[in-house]
Amino acid sequence: MQLLSLLLLAPVALALWPNPRNVSFGTSSVILSPTFWIHWASTTPAPSDMTAAISRTMAQLYTDNLQRLVVGRANADLQALAYAAELPMLHLEIIGNSEIKSIMAEATCELGSRDESYTLSVPADGTAAMIQANTTLGLFRGLTTFSQLWYSTGGVASTFPFYSFFPGASMIYSIEAPVTVMDTPAYPYRGLLLDTARNFIPVTDLYRQLDAMSYVKINTFHWHVTDSQSFPLTVAAYPELSQYGAYSAAQTYSLQDVQNVINYAGAIGIDVMVEIDTPGHTASIWESHPDYIACWNEAPWGTYANEPPAGQLRFAVPEVLNFTQQMFASVLSTLPSTLFSTGGDELNTNCYVNDTEFQQALISTGQNFSSALNTFVLGTHDTVRAAGKTPVVWEEMLLVQNVSLGPDTLVIVWISSDDALAVAQKGYKMIHGPSDYFYLDCGAGAWLGDDTDGTSWCDPFKTWQKAYSFDPLQNLTESQYSLVLGGQQLLWTEQSGPENVDPIVWPRAAASAEVFWTGANGPDGLPRNSTEALARLHDVRYRMVARGINAINLQPQWCALRPGDCNLV
Amino acid sequence: MQLLSLLLLAPVALALWPNPRNVSFGTSSVILSPTFWIHWASTTPAPSDMTAAISRTMAQLYTDNLQRLVVGRANADLQALAYAAELPMLHLEIIGNSEIKSIMAEATCELGSRDESYTLSVPADGTAAMIQANTTLGLFRGLTTFSQLWYSTGGVASTFPFYSFFPGASMIYSIEAPVTVMDTPAYPYRGLLLDTARNFIPVTDLYRQLDAMSYVKINTFHWHVTDSQSFPLTVAAYPELSQYGAYSAAQTYSLQDVQNVINYAGAIGIDVMVEIDTPGHTASIWESHPDYIACWNEAPWGTYANEPPAGQLRFAVPEVLNFTQQMFASVLSTLPSTLFSTGGDELNTNCYVNDTEFQQALISTGQNFSSALNTFVLGTHDTVRAAGKTPVVWEEMLLVQNVSLGPDTLVIVWISSDDALAVAQKGYKMIHGPSDYFYLDCGAGAWLGDDTDGTSWCDPFKTWQKAYSFDPLQNLTESQYSLVLGGQQLLWTEQSGPENVDPIVWPRAAASAEVFWTGANGPDGLPRNSTEALARLHDVRYRMVARGINAINLQPQWCALRPGDCNLV
Repeated sequence: MQLLSLLLLAPVALALWPNPRNVSFGTSSVILSPTFWIHWASTTPAPSDMTAAISRTMAQLYTDNLQRLVVGRANADLQALAYAAELPMLHLEIIGNSEIKSIMAEATCELGSRDESYTLSVPADGTAAMIQANTTLGLFRGLTTFSQLWYSTGGVASTFPFYSFFPGASMIYSIEAPVTVMDTPAYPYRGLLLDTARNFIPVTDLYRQLDAMSYVKINTFHWHVTDSQSFPLTVAAYPELSQYGAYSAAQTYSLQDVQNVINYAGAIGIDVMVEIDTPGHTASIWESHPDYIACWNEAPWGTYANEPPAGQLRFAVPEVLNFTQQMFASVLSTLPSTLFSTGGDELNTNCYVNDTEFQQALISTGQNFSSALNTFVLGTHDTVRAAGKTPVVWEEMLLVQNVSLGPDTLVIVWISSDDALAVAQKGYKMIHGPSDYFYLDCGAGAWLGDDTDGTSWCDPFKTWQKAYSFDPLQNLTESQYSLVLGGQQLLWTEQSGPENVDPIVWPRAAASAEVFWTGANGPDGLPRNSTEALARLHDVRYRMVARGINAINLQPQWCALRPGDCNLV
Repeated sequence: MQLLSLLLLAPVALALWPNPRNVSFGTSSVILSPTFWIHWASTTPAPSDMTAAISRTMAQLYTDNLQRLVVGRANADLQALAYAAELPMLHLEIIGNSEIKSIMAEATCELGSRDESYTLSVPADGTAAMIQANTTLGLFRGLTTFSQLWYSTGGVASTFPFYSFFPGASMIYSIEAPVTVMDTPAYPYRGLLLDTARNFIPVTDLYRQLDAMSYVKINTFHWHVTDSQSFPLTVAAYPELSQYGAYSAAQTYSLQDVQNVINYAGAIGIDVMVEIDTPGHTASIWESHPDYIACWNEAPWGTYANEPPAGQLRFAVPEVLNFTQQMFASVLSTLPSTLFSTGGDELNTNCYVNDTEFQQALISTGQNFSSALNTFVLGTHDTVRAAGKTPVVWEEMLLVQNVSLGPDTLVIVWISSDDALAVAQKGYKMIHGPSDYFYLDCGAGAWLGDDTDGTSWCDPFKTWQKAYSFDPLQNLTESQYSLVLGGQQLLWTEQSGPENVDPIVWPRAAASAEVFWTGANGPDGLPRNSTEALARLHDVRYRMVARGINAINLQPQWCALRPGDCNLV
């Protein structure tokens, strides 16, 4: 009984995810007025994706239908609502004098110049709420926060006269007004990688991932679109790549599909960073261009590749560089993002030892393995830059192959979180994607055949708590901090596809979303910690389910309703 | 090239799952005649669930729309189809003189007296196919096998004149006629446990699991319906149990829901074995009957329970036994199955040490802990037997608590596969459900809060290959073999719910389905092995997806099309 009283008196944390940088809240209840609306306060008309965001937010307020996660659910709040003020409207206001652009334009501009900041206030006295921002992107982030404040009475009748006319109607309410938020992300890059090559993921399933990403303010979809197993990407200059390299015609992304994904993402504040992994992870190019691929499907595959099938670009052959550049150029011309990944992981040197064409090319061009690789990678990066974009690579290009990457190149750390220091010591900007914290496919057992007792190479399973414990600045010196642009969780799809992408990713990928938005300390000034975070993460998970994402239960519902009662003892 | 020729010449294994006990097949193609139909060959009308099974099979033949898993997919087979005979019909024939009963009646009769055997022939010469069986249940198993023989040309036009009238129509074909199958399961009990108490699973999601179970001839749904976290089962004699013990009114199984699940299952050859776990795992009963529960929600929970919340029946109190018997009787009267589990796992003795009511009951009844437990368990088993059913318990009742169980009691081995021997040595019949092979929730990381580096208690993930390697007779002597009734994979739902039940269960649970149907050796007489099985399991997985089950990819599709190319090297 004493415990119960304490819980009732303790301030309930706002169930926002990611946690805003600064937030204050009260203990008053507010309900949405029956005539609540969202008002675009600028004289310049709202861009169409902003208008769509307003409509979508209005719909979510009424369709989330989420009862608060507390014992008794909505019943626990009904009494307080009798004294609640009605919120009449929400103003959206662009401040400053800069040109009003679309959310997509703001979301796809250079990483360093994006402005996602906003302020939000929800008064408790029946006056209007307000979101202010310098950009539509900031307003959109504010709308996302706003939409997480509201719960439903779940069809319970109310004492408010208006509602008595609508039996079964729900009131939409918040219990912690007045709310004030001042928010801006700690890191500019907050991503999610999805691999659509090991197994194909249809566009509609990608849309659903993008929705979930935007709910937790992830701003980059790292699209690992091709690999050795399949080449689903339609390339205008080389249509044969997907024609022969995709699993089937139905398992391709048409030029229009790619634009649809980019536009869908942009409108909800997400930049699409496409990756065409080279020179490794390219066996599927053999299907259309066998002359460009060394060691294709050589056995045993383990000698020539990290997984079947073997096959890598003959990067020392000038024609192969030329092809790769033309292919990249063809794709790059269709992408609004300023980021493009040329890949570069897991290059297998055995593949080339007995490859006559490769070895002859080295001789005829007077190069060795390293210099030829340097030529190839820098050549493809020239193409990326010529398209006005920044090249992105996996860490081996820098740390293993010692390619003399341009200083603008972004490096993704994946093999181990320990490798961030080496990247920083070489002075490169980095994106964190370490397998020891962020790989979503770990722990699902061996997928190779004939391997009864096999585990995944990166066992154990990386829980949300593990990801949440990641320190983006660990091992770095203060002067190196600015090299960290952010990070991302990653799903490689050897054992995944549209059937399980939701439950394997969500709500786990929300963990890194908060790590890189909120930074080291929560709004209370204390270090982030998973014990505080769990109740908020349950909330965002239940809200995701309400919005059609098949996010998993993190605990029995009994625990979700009783914060702290299911901690390790 | 040499490899390719070998592959083309090698006999392709039929993609049946579970593998029949005896099968022979040829190399001729057969297509379904445009007027193909399934003929009920008995003069007695077919029971209504049999008629439904025929209709459903007819639909699946045309809606599976599965192209064969081979490089080139349907295109690889088109040439052969030009010479194919048309299969005009399939006869279903009950043999012998026994009364024709419904599939459900046959599926829910005593474990030892079920007859699931059947023979199937699909000629290559254009004459009719035939399934013969002693029971409708056998015919249904044969229909399930029959439905796995067929592939679609995927809308590819054909040389057959009939199809030229229907552009885009698919031919439905099999490439290994003539097929002859003589089949009967190795073990009578082949189950799947689902826990609907840690998190609730709606009835429609249970239906989908039952569908998938029937596709691989699993014949028992072990329904762990209640636990300490929630009590979703409506009990007619004690409606307050679910009224207060369920997560919400929407998260209950009404009396009608339970009958719907039982009838749905029975019609597709599945017996529903309900479990009301006692005397542990009962904290949710406190919500309606606080006097019956000891140590409810005592902290730290780890002292009193294996997971939160603590709370167990005060089994020494005569009124508690009386309540449990009345509750069981109320439920038992609604169940057609001859099996009912009273649970009995993870009883925590600390819970009772300081429980005044429990200790006073021991004194007033003149019993000690063990004798009181014996009285309680045997008392509840009397209730089970009085309803004409066989009691089923978890292994601790026998091996840890030494309850003097009746010789008819079935014991489920779960803690370790090593415990089967001890059960056998005590002479009890057993069902295998060992956590070291069959627990589907293992490997998903810790679900308790405040546990950053925690793994699941039964790490690592139990792959299908691990489950498939299980030997039901390991460590047993030949005289003990007959004690093994079968086994099951199990899903405990701390981290699951409708959002991920399909991908976490399927196709993995097909592994034990084959272990217990096919037995030690495949139809070729060789020991079962996962390397042979993988191609067939891919096939059943793709067929499940075609039928609406969100079964996961076991490998990249590249591997699924190239048996053997993705084995461990």
